[in-house]
Amino acid sequence: MRFLRVLFLILLPTPFFVHAQHKQPNIIFFMVDDMGWQDCSLPFDKVVSELNNKYHTPNMERLARRGMQFTNGYANPVCTPTRVSLMTGMDVPRHHITNWTNVRKDTPTDHPDSLLNPPVWNHNGLSPVPGISHTIVATPLPALLRDAGYHTIHVGKAHFAPYGTPAADPLQIGFQENVAGTAAGHPGSFLAADQYRGNPSDTFWAVRGLEKYMAKGEFLTDALTHAALEKLDGVKNSSKPFFLYLSHYAVHVPLSKDDRYYSKYIAKGLDDKEARFASLVEGMDKSLGDLMDYLDNNELTANTQIVFMSDNGSLSLVPPRGGKAFTHNLPLKQGKGSLYEGGIRVPLIVAGPGIPAGSKQDQYVVVHDFFPTILDWAGVSKPKLIQALDGQSILPFLGNPAKRDDKKVLLWHYPNNWNNINVKGTSWGSAIRKGAFKLIYFHKTGDLELYNLDEDLGEEHDLSKVMPGKLKEMALLLTYELQSRNAPMPTFKSTRKPIPWPSDLINNN
Amino acid sequence: MRFLRVLFLILLPTPFFVHAQHKQPNIIFFMVDDMGWQDCSLPFDKVVSELNNKYHTPNMERLARRGMQFTNGYANPVCTPTRVSLMTGMDVPRHHITNWTNVRKDTPTDHPDSLLNPPVWNHNGLSPVPGISHTIVATPLPALLRDAGYHTIHVGKAHFAPYGTPAADPLQIGFQENVAGTAAGHPGSFLAADQYRGNPSDTFWAVRGLEKYMAKGEFLTDALTHAALEKLDGVKNSSKPFFLYLSHYAVHVPLSKDDRYYSKYIAKGLDDKEARFASLVEGMDKSLGDLMDYLDNNELTANTQIVFMSDNGSLSLVPPRGGKAFTHNLPLKQGKGSLYEGGIRVPLIVAGPGIPAGSKQDQYVVVHDFFPTILDWAGVSKPKLIQALDGQSILPFLGNPAKRDDKKVLLWHYPNNWNNINVKGTSWGSAIRKGAFKLIYFHKTGDLELYNLDEDLGEEHDLSKVMPGKLKEMALLLTYELQSRNAPMPTFKSTRKPIPWPSDLINNN
Repeated sequence: MRFLRVLFLILLPTPFFVHAQHKQPNIIFFMVDDMGWQDCSLPFDKVVSELNNKYHTPNMERLARRGMQFTNGYANPVCTPTRVSLMTGMDVPRHHITNWTNVRKDTPTDHPDSLLNPPVWNHNGLSPVPGISHTIVATPLPALLRDAGYHTIHVGKAHFAPYGTPAADPLQIGFQENVAGTAAGHPGSFLAADQYRGNPSDTFWAVRGLEKYMAKGEFLTDALTHAALEKLDGVKNSSKPFFLYLSHYAVHVPLSKDDRYYSKYIAKGLDDKEARFASLVEGMDKSLGDLMDYLDNNELTANTQIVFMSDNGSLSLVPPRGGKAFTHNLPLKQGKGSLYEGGIRVPLIVAGPGIPAGSKQDQYVVVHDFFPTILDWAGVSKPKLIQALDGQSILPFLGNPAKRDDKKVLLWHYPNNWNNINVKGTSWGSAIRKGAFKLIYFHKTGDLELYNLDEDLGEEHDLSKVMPGKLKEMALLLTYELQSRNAPMPTFKSTRKPIPWPSDLINNN
Repeated sequence: MRFLRVLFLILLPTPFFVHAQHKQPNIIFFMVDDMGWQDCSLPFDKVVSELNNKYHTPNMERLARRGMQFTNGYANPVCTPTRVSLMTGMDVPRHHITNWTNVRKDTPTDHPDSLLNPPVWNHNGLSPVPGISHTIVATPLPALLRDAGYHTIHVGKAHFAPYGTPAADPLQIGFQENVAGTAAGHPGSFLAADQYRGNPSDTFWAVRGLEKYMAKGEFLTDALTHAALEKLDGVKNSSKPFFLYLSHYAVHVPLSKDDRYYSKYIAKGLDDKEARFASLVEGMDKSLGDLMDYLDNNELTANTQIVFMSDNGSLSLVPPRGGKAFTHNLPLKQGKGSLYEGGIRVPLIVAGPGIPAGSKQDQYVVVHDFFPTILDWAGVSKPKLIQALDGQSILPFLGNPAKRDDKKVLLWHYPNNWNNINVKGTSWGSAIRKGAFKLIYFHKTGDLELYNLDEDLGEEHDLSKVMPGKLKEMALLLTYELQSRNAPMPTFKSTRKPIPWPSDLINNN
């Protein structure tokens, strides 16, 4: 009798009740690495550009026909800041992971600069537990979803924290399964022939756990797709909904050649580097298509929310890209690493139940808005968090393409030197968007630039001199938002004093 | 034929279409002068206090049974700032009328102080037209209502601007009728026997235009009520809705004795001054009852919105009040002129179509919120304004007593010396409320005090030392909000430099 009762309890499908109660949808976050706003045949601008004609991404077009395209989707200028913002709901000025994190613990990734020192920032990344120096401790999204009854799956690039800290392993932040996610921010190679590593002794950037797909000679993007679908095979008949974070290493360097597509782009007239890049893009797009096919074939589409997004703008330095530097995101200015639009505006599509098919939404939203949005989808109305949230649920915008909030404030903060190119706009800055206006504070020069993005997408016409009232309003607001988050600021090498606040740089009368 | 067409056009009841289109309700703003949160038998606190037992205001109770009582209704610490906030939708840091305005133009009302000089403020008050120094130029509420088809009536105290400026006359800001409204902030006397003036040569504070009621020996409060009802008689059968701003001189000093009620309060044990004050209060309450009776008898109640409000906390100085100073608003701290709750929290009731009867609403709201609220009632969705708005429509709160917005921000700013009492909290300060928390910045001492009003209505437990994070958050926010409005700040007499910002007073680490 007692045995029977225990058996009954074991067999009781507890998660079913949670599921039924909230009608929780499956959730897929499809994250692409280093993919720019123009790196696809689907236009996010009002016009079809030459760049749109360069690429072939039919599955992004297909997803957009099923859901909502965000023309003003934003991320941070580099990788780890964006990924931690997604997992914590915090923006960069608050989580203080201002730059990408090293594979090595206690080793900031800052390039030296002649004028400024970077501030102390959380170079040891995200941590689910306190006690590790230079980490942001937060309640991570996957753990909340797991606790809400989701089966949580990580496939692909993680890059939340260095080796030697817990969050180097996605299982430590609430994922119940992990394929290929580590402290590394890029693969050694996308090629099975290279064993997905840069060289035989590569310990940091080798992508592991994909031996089965490697044996079939699959390109890394395909290997990750197939690993993800295999994981879904294991849960598709479960009473639990799933959360799949499919985070591609594509289209980050190295520009491995995907032979299935490369020659087509050479034939179109692209140079070797750009044909490699376009082949990476199309391989990524095929992954999206394979995933959508899988959902369709398994009758999962109707109850699955899909978010398609990139983690920053397209890398636009030459080399490693072909062509001319800072042309790869046009009409957006500059590229990865920059606070101009080319560095932060990214492709974003959301499709799933309740979202109008084939719709466009011009409201600006940002990656950390998906923290509360995903919790809303999961029916987690009052999550227990140790962190303060900056993200705001975008459900109102998803439900209505005409819905607007011009008072919403977005912040970017990059008080670091990304590389040694010393170009104004890339590295060393802070920025704020409110309504159509964007203010950029350049830490090295002390300049403030003001743009009306509705009228000047390319940030060619600085309005700081002609709109002093708006300049002041935005400078005060940026100062307040940075100060209220204790945002870490660079210091002058000569005096060791912090750089001025934006409000110190304007006439206060 | 042409004559007929012209006649037809003349007879066409144009306003009717506007009326029918919006189903515009009549709107009455019943403003009381210097009436505190506890100056009535209707409790606004969670408990019935000794002060509630002191007063008799059955018609406030009656209005509350018909509508919604706001337990956290706010105004500014003195008169003109509140009245101009209502008429413009701007808060004090933005409209810069930081103190009450003189009857004389170009004559600030500041008392001298040994430490600080007041800033330059808009001591010439509100102006509907540009070109007059030290005025705030704004599109006034009555003009917008008039243009939206309302018949707009001013009865009682105006006090928007000094004599010699247009807004000394309510007709210049969009009222189509005016009884008794001038540049004066109080009457010479409430007694007909005194001809509603202080002395025979009183030119500034004599209340004029009430000869008919004076002849009947009516107390000033009654005279204003009867004048208002007579104005309503003239428009009640019109196709136009009306906006009546009935703004009592009661219960401001002088504490004239209303013989109808005085002896009752003496019999209750009140001293002469307090019995006079209570008689002023009950006379004001009778006016409210007469107005409600009029609406009932003329079948106007179902289509009339009524707002009952005071312009600041109860005067709590002795003399002119009886009893002990700073006890008249208990448990609220201090009184008129103060940034503590006794100076700014006021009785507020709203009743009319769509508002749940007998409801209570704990959301904090402020007088300038009625600018957009009243325009919402009038169906004016996008008013053409030359000013920026601080007020936010309270319709969501009026529709749902459980609705809350803890992110709403209210500001108070009083960089002036109200009188010569030199008590910390009265005069010389700025304050901000967000959620349960309120921060007060004392300009003379440089102190910051932080209170949790949900737990400490009496502001007895300063949390600034025990909640440094909240202190910093509120200090930064107050600084930002003041700076972004170009709020005028006092200067030190010795150095002529402005006092520090609140953010300068906290540890910025």
